[in-house]
Amino acid sequence: MPSALDTYKKRTKKSAKIFERSKKLHINGVSHNIRFFEPYPFVTKSARGTHLVDVDGNKYTDYWMGHWSLILGHAAPKVADKVRKQINSCWMHGTVNENTIEFSEVIQQAVPVAEKIRYVSTGTEATMYATRIARAKTGKKIIAKIDGGWHGYTTDLLKSVNYPFDQPESAGLTDESNIVSIPYNNLEKSISILESVKNDLAGVIIEPVLGGAGCIPATKEYLTGIQEFVHRNNALYILDEIVTGFRFRFGCLYKTMNLDPDIVTLGKIVGGGFPIGVICGKDEIMKITDTNSNKRLDRSYIGGGTFSANPMTMTSGKAMLKFLKKNSSPVYKKIGKLGEEARKGLAKIFQDKVTVTGMGSLFMPHFRANGITHVTNAEEAAMCDTQTLKRYHFELIAKNRIFFLPGKLGAISYVHSESDIKNLLEASKKFAVSLK
Amino acid sequence: MPSALDTYKKRTKKSAKIFERSKKLHINGVSHNIRFFEPYPFVTKSARGTHLVDVDGNKYTDYWMGHWSLILGHAAPKVADKVRKQINSCWMHGTVNENTIEFSEVIQQAVPVAEKIRYVSTGTEATMYATRIARAKTGKKIIAKIDGGWHGYTTDLLKSVNYPFDQPESAGLTDESNIVSIPYNNLEKSISILESVKNDLAGVIIEPVLGGAGCIPATKEYLTGIQEFVHRNNALYILDEIVTGFRFRFGCLYKTMNLDPDIVTLGKIVGGGFPIGVICGKDEIMKITDTNSNKRLDRSYIGGGTFSANPMTMTSGKAMLKFLKKNSSPVYKKIGKLGEEARKGLAKIFQDKVTVTGMGSLFMPHFRANGITHVTNAEEAAMCDTQTLKRYHFELIAKNRIFFLPGKLGAISYVHSESDIKNLLEASKKFAVSLK
Repeated sequence: MPSALDTYKKRTKKSAKIFERSKKLHINGVSHNIRFFEPYPFVTKSARGTHLVDVDGNKYTDYWMGHWSLILGHAAPKVADKVRKQINSCWMHGTVNENTIEFSEVIQQAVPVAEKIRYVSTGTEATMYATRIARAKTGKKIIAKIDGGWHGYTTDLLKSVNYPFDQPESAGLTDESNIVSIPYNNLEKSISILESVKNDLAGVIIEPVLGGAGCIPATKEYLTGIQEFVHRNNALYILDEIVTGFRFRFGCLYKTMNLDPDIVTLGKIVGGGFPIGVICGKDEIMKITDTNSNKRLDRSYIGGGTFSANPMTMTSGKAMLKFLKKNSSPVYKKIGKLGEEARKGLAKIFQDKVTVTGMGSLFMPHFRANGITHVTNAEEAAMCDTQTLKRYHFELIAKNRIFFLPGKLGAISYVHSESDIKNLLEASKKFAVSLK
Repeated sequence: MPSALDTYKKRTKKSAKIFERSKKLHINGVSHNIRFFEPYPFVTKSARGTHLVDVDGNKYTDYWMGHWSLILGHAAPKVADKVRKQINSCWMHGTVNENTIEFSEVIQQAVPVAEKIRYVSTGTEATMYATRIARAKTGKKIIAKIDGGWHGYTTDLLKSVNYPFDQPESAGLTDESNIVSIPYNNLEKSISILESVKNDLAGVIIEPVLGGAGCIPATKEYLTGIQEFVHRNNALYILDEIVTGFRFRFGCLYKTMNLDPDIVTLGKIVGGGFPIGVICGKDEIMKITDTNSNKRLDRSYIGGGTFSANPMTMTSGKAMLKFLKKNSSPVYKKIGKLGEEARKGLAKIFQDKVTVTGMGSLFMPHFRANGITHVTNAEEAAMCDTQTLKRYHFELIAKNRIFFLPGKLGAISYVHSESDIKNLLEASKKFAVSLK
């Protein structure tokens, strides 16, 4: 039987050639570090529904779904119709437009903390501004984040992303001492670290489900405990819901846990696949960014950018949220059910070899190693056998044309079906057998 | 005769109502601070060619042109055809795509420093990464920028943007001591400042035409002198051509002055109106960002983001650059000529009341004050009568339906005509008369 590598190479000859050109032009051959995998990533030609189609004609069932953004699948018709019309009108003009207002009204209704909204074009920008606002509002400097927490590549939060979390992430950073890191779901240890910096603590930023670091939900107790500490110490509580916003319900995850964040960042799903980042905050917090009424030295000077609230993103985002609002019951019920089937199915197939994490439509198997049987934080996820996870994902790509970004969590969209999950489980069984 | 304010209010009643809603949702009512102007900005409904049309049906001849991005005018048909087709295929998938490669090949041919390219979604991200690369490559910390230089809202460069340049731009910044500021076009003073930090100088970032700070071209002598100092001191020379790239010729401005930058950032025009930032650099510089071959502690960890190199931006950018390449002679000849007519015409109309800056298709009048007659840097621009400039622009909007973002430079597109410039000059004459 040919190896997965041989099979992949045989099936992706055009991709191989094109990627050689790409390597001459781009760092690592890609436009985002994580999009590279060995021996080379296939080159996508088109995408529709559940599928990516590569330049060699291979059709992959996709669980990467555009960095987990595409909750209605690729090229969702309901969104396509609207953006096509918008193209006929215009796609960018850098002035106020009515779509923005209608879109914001939908967000505000669904996400109560969004008393004021600022659009940017990426999640990285949204979290950058959230930290700036926290520091400006409190007059303090330290931002605490989670070990393994991922908030984009912003300079302000580029620390403790990859295991081991105590080493610098990058050369060329100058201000890491103002970032402090705490372990997920470990309230006692987190509070003890926060306690040591509380006098200069401007804010804490947390993903309610740790995304890139292992698809790990936070406990309500943890999130509530951190919130209580943060508010008692006059710091801001920032929830990064770029992955989780509109992923589990029509709105944010924080509402289901009765949390009271000061700022929530959104992105991915809310843009309908067009570039977006959103800073949502309470009025009393966000007013510090008002450049009309604040003096220069008092304001938090946050941006937008040339492309902020461009008509394409506003149209696409509005179409996405309106569809989700109207269909929230069937959408979240279906994808949640499929997610549960995937998690339960994988747990059954891999038995004690794997711990499956996730919730709703997100799922991720962790191959147990180093005595880890429970995965509740990024350290435990990193101590699992990530190489086998990548090999599992690569075999799915090569042999079964099922695509996960190797090593990353999977996201189910509304167009995925029972049979997709069955196929995934069947393919996983074969891999499980090969492990024995 | 009714005042400009009364006329504007009368003509923009629907905008006024919609903007009231927008203020309840958005900081300053807008999605980018500079998009606000008194009493309220009109709300755009659509845009085509030279025109913005607002919700009240007013049709404005536009010189703002989407933050100076739209060199072929609004909704350029050559770009529209391609992006409409792309929508039919897909708009975002977060994997490698062939459009990216073809687009990069066009950029690499036109911009020789682009030996390696990384796409991001905004200019702010591009300059953030450029500073990180400079610090990583040199192992030094200080980044020098120009007084008034604008490189987006990135934390790494948020200093000395607005006059007076020695005050903080924002509360909530923690690392401004690593940013040093130098005066544009003053080589002697700039070198003396750089000399004082040369041992820790990682790089200098410069717009070859100062954009937001007054539409002021740098002299070749200045840019060459800074470059010589920077390279002699083992620092990186970063040119921010987000405004100037493909604005004056098919390629960057630096080539016309035989400059030798290490990194060039692009944005705006190259995206064809879709969100983009580009980091172009020499191979020997950019290889420090390679996450496959560098160890974690040696690499400069730069991103891309969920939306980097998305099929829409790649398609739009490629369509834009291919059109510009094929038509570079007529495009740049025409818009340069119209620009010259605008500059000469305004200088003649306002006589000794105004100094007109700019080059090619960019132009900006500065109302003389405080003894300033020449505008060669941001301080001189800021000491001019910026209130009268804003009043002039507002009167053009209200009385003549000619749109400049009040206080900012104008950009001419390929669809502007001789008669547009004539109309602008006629309207300016009326304002000039009112000044006497």
